[in-house]
Amino acid sequence: MLSVTEARDRILALLAPTGSEIVTLAEAAGRVLAAPVVARLTQPPLDVSAMDGFALRAADATVGARLRIIGAAPAGHPFAGSVGAGEAVRLFTGSVVPSGADCIVIQEDTTFDDDVVILNAAGHPGKHVRGAGLDFTIGDVLLEPGRRLTARDIGLAAAANHPWLTVHRKPIIAVLATGDEIAMPGDPIPPGGIVSSNSHALAGFIRAVGGVPIILPIALDDRAAIATAAQAAARADLLITTGGASVGTHDLVQAGLADLGLDLDFWKIAMRPGKPLMFGRLGALPVLGLPGNPVSAMVCALLFGKPAIERLCGLPGDPPPSEPARCTIPLAANDQRADHLRATLTRDADGSWLVTPFGPQDSSLLRRLALADAVVLRAPYARAEPAGTVVDIIRLAACGL
Amino acid sequence: MLSVTEARDRILALLAPTGSEIVTLAEAAGRVLAAPVVARLTQPPLDVSAMDGFALRAADATVGARLRIIGAAPAGHPFAGSVGAGEAVRLFTGSVVPSGADCIVIQEDTTFDDDVVILNAAGHPGKHVRGAGLDFTIGDVLLEPGRRLTARDIGLAAAANHPWLTVHRKPIIAVLATGDEIAMPGDPIPPGGIVSSNSHALAGFIRAVGGVPIILPIALDDRAAIATAAQAAARADLLITTGGASVGTHDLVQAGLADLGLDLDFWKIAMRPGKPLMFGRLGALPVLGLPGNPVSAMVCALLFGKPAIERLCGLPGDPPPSEPARCTIPLAANDQRADHLRATLTRDADGSWLVTPFGPQDSSLLRRLALADAVVLRAPYARAEPAGTVVDIIRLAACGL
Repeated sequence: MLSVTEARDRILALLAPTGSEIVTLAEAAGRVLAAPVVARLTQPPLDVSAMDGFALRAADATVGARLRIIGAAPAGHPFAGSVGAGEAVRLFTGSVVPSGADCIVIQEDTTFDDDVVILNAAGHPGKHVRGAGLDFTIGDVLLEPGRRLTARDIGLAAAANHPWLTVHRKPIIAVLATGDEIAMPGDPIPPGGIVSSNSHALAGFIRAVGGVPIILPIALDDRAAIATAAQAAARADLLITTGGASVGTHDLVQAGLADLGLDLDFWKIAMRPGKPLMFGRLGALPVLGLPGNPVSAMVCALLFGKPAIERLCGLPGDPPPSEPARCTIPLAANDQRADHLRATLTRDADGSWLVTPFGPQDSSLLRRLALADAVVLRAPYARAEPAGTVVDIIRLAACGL
Repeated sequence: MLSVTEARDRILALLAPTGSEIVTLAEAAGRVLAAPVVARLTQPPLDVSAMDGFALRAADATVGARLRIIGAAPAGHPFAGSVGAGEAVRLFTGSVVPSGADCIVIQEDTTFDDDVVILNAAGHPGKHVRGAGLDFTIGDVLLEPGRRLTARDIGLAAAANHPWLTVHRKPIIAVLATGDEIAMPGDPIPPGGIVSSNSHALAGFIRAVGGVPIILPIALDDRAAIATAAQAAARADLLITTGGASVGTHDLVQAGLADLGLDLDFWKIAMRPGKPLMFGRLGALPVLGLPGNPVSAMVCALLFGKPAIERLCGLPGDPPPSEPARCTIPLAANDQRADHLRATLTRDADGSWLVTPFGPQDSSLLRRLALADAVVLRAPYARAEPAGTVVDIIRLAACGL
C-alpha cells in the first residue's frame, strides 16, 4: 500500500494548472494570478503631505515665523503656483506638495486664520512628506503569478490602475456518486438505502478550494451505467468518484472505468479512514476515486482533493497545513496505516490549541465529522502517547471543509 | 476617544441579523443557518454491516463452522428472507443485516465459495454491526441556528434528507468611496489624483465575510453629491463609506450625511491606523465611515466591518480571532492609541508562529499591507518589549482580508 505522501505526489505529478482568462477586479478575489501585476503608475504620483498642515520653505520654518497663506491644495486640487519666501499653502492628507515648498508644518503646531499662519514649532525638510513612489513605482512587479488573490491584493492591483487581471480558469471538477443504495435528498429512498451526502459536501468543498463542481447524476452499481456517467465528465479538469473504488464484487467503479480504458495508477493507500483511494487517468482526464463512506471520502478529499484542485488552480498543491496542538487524552499506538482522528479544539489559557479526539472514530459517523474542528495526524506505527503530548493537527474549516 | 472594544460594542448594538430565506443545499455552504436542521430519518436506518463478510446466527459462529450461503445482500438490496441455523448471507459494507442473523464474521476470517462458507474465527453478537441510529435518529437536532455551514454540515444535512435549508439572507453592504482625487481603475486620473482601491478591496472582503457588496459611484467632495450617493444605499443593510469621516474642511462625509439626518454615534477612536472612524444611522440604515487611507480602511474593516457584517449574517459578531506569536524584533512602547502593526509570519521549528512587524508602518503603504500576513495587536500604553516576547496577532487572509 502507498503512503499518503507518495500517493499525493503521484496525483500531483499528473496535474497541470488550467489555462488563463481575464476577469474584472471584482471577480478576481480568491482567484490565482496567472500573470504578474505590474504597477502602471507611481504611488504616490508626486510628493504628497502625510498630514493636514502648511507647505512652506524650510528656511522659513522657525518658531514664531509669520507666513502669508497664498492658497490651499485639497487632495485632487494641486496648488498651481509656487511657494516663495514668507509664504505658505494649506495642505491636507494626500495633497500634492506645491512647487517651491520643501517643508511641512502640521496644523497642530500652528496658529492660523484665513490669511496668516504663525508657526509654534520648527519644521524640517522632508518631514511629513510621502515622497513620490513611497508605496510603489511604475514598472514594479507588485504581485507574482501563482498567488491566490486576497482582498488586499485586489486593492493593490486597483491602486496600480488595473481594471482587469489575468488569472487561472477555475478548474471544473465533475463529481460522480455511485451506488444502488443512495438517493438524492427529497427523492424516494430505496429499501435499506440512504440519502447521498458526499456529492453535496464535495460541491461545497470544491467551491471553497477554488473549483467549479459539476454534480453528475448518481450512477447505479453497474459497469455500463458508471461508464456512461463518467463519459459525461470528459471535458472536466478532474473527475472525482465516490464509492466502489475497491475491488469487491460490488465495487464497480474501477471495473466501469476500466471498460473506458482507465489507466490505473493506484487504488489502495496506507491510511485510515479511507484505504480504498483510487487514482488514474481516462485519456487526458485525471480520476480520483474516493471511498463511498462519507467520513472517509471527506478526509481523503482534504488530504488529496485539496492539493489536486489547488494544483489545477495554479497553486503548488501543498499538503493541507498542519499545526501543533496539545492532546488532552492519551493516544493508543497506531498500526501500519496513517490515522486521522476526528477531534474538537479549544484554546489553552496561553492561546495555544488543545485537541481532544472523539472516543468513537467509526468512519460512518457523519454527525461527529460535522462537529469536529480538526483531525489529529497519527503516523504509521506511531507509539502510544500520554495525555499532554503535542501532536500535529489539520483544522478542517480553515481548509474549506 | 472611544476604545476599539467600546466602538465595536456600540456598532454591534445597533445591528440585527437579516431575515431568512430558503436556499438549495448547493447554495448553502458558507451561509448562516436560520432554523435548526432536524434529522428527517434515522442513520443508519437499520442495523447494517460495517465490513464485507457474512451474517449468521451467533450460535453458529464457532471456528470451523461450515454454513450454507443462502444469498447475498449488496448495499441497496436487502436480503428478503431470514437466516436460519446453519445458514449465512453474504454482506458488504453498508448492507442491511438480514432478519434472523445477529452476528457478522468478516470476509478475511472465512474461506468461502459460491455455496459454502467456513469460519476461521469465532464471531460475537453485535460485532461489525452499525446499529440503527448510530449516527443520528429521526428528530435529532443536528445543526443549530446561528452556525456558518461548512461543507461537512452540508453533507450531514443531505444525509438527514434536507434538499433545502433555511438561512439568513446575505446582507447587502453598500460601499461609497468619496474624494475629488480618486478615479476608477482604467478611468482618467485627475491631476495629482490616485486610483480608487478601497471599494475593490472592500468588495472582496465583504464577499469573503458573507455579504453582498454594492459599489456605489464615487462621490465628489461635495455635501450634496455625498447625500445623493448615500440615498442610493437606502435599501442596503449597511452603508460603508471611505474617506472624509473626520471633521476637516474637506472631510464632507459627515456633513453630507448630516444633511440627510445622520444620527451620529461616534467618529473618533483611540487606534492606529485609523483614528477617524465614524458610526451612526441614517434612519434605519447603519453607516460605518472608514478612513480614506487604504491601510487604515482595511484595518478598520477587519476590526469593525467583519464583526458588523457577521452580526448582520446571523453570527455573534465576535472580534476577529487573535492568537499568540513570538515577535522576532523588539517593540517600542505604545502611546494612548491601540496599534496594529503590519507583519509577516513564519513557523518556528516547533510549529508555533514567529511574527516580524515591518519597519516602516506608514499607513499609506498598500503594497506592504498586501504582503503582510498578520497585524500585531499593541494595547494602548503597552510597554516596550524585547525580541522574543509573545504577542497577539490577527491573521489577515484567514479573516477574509
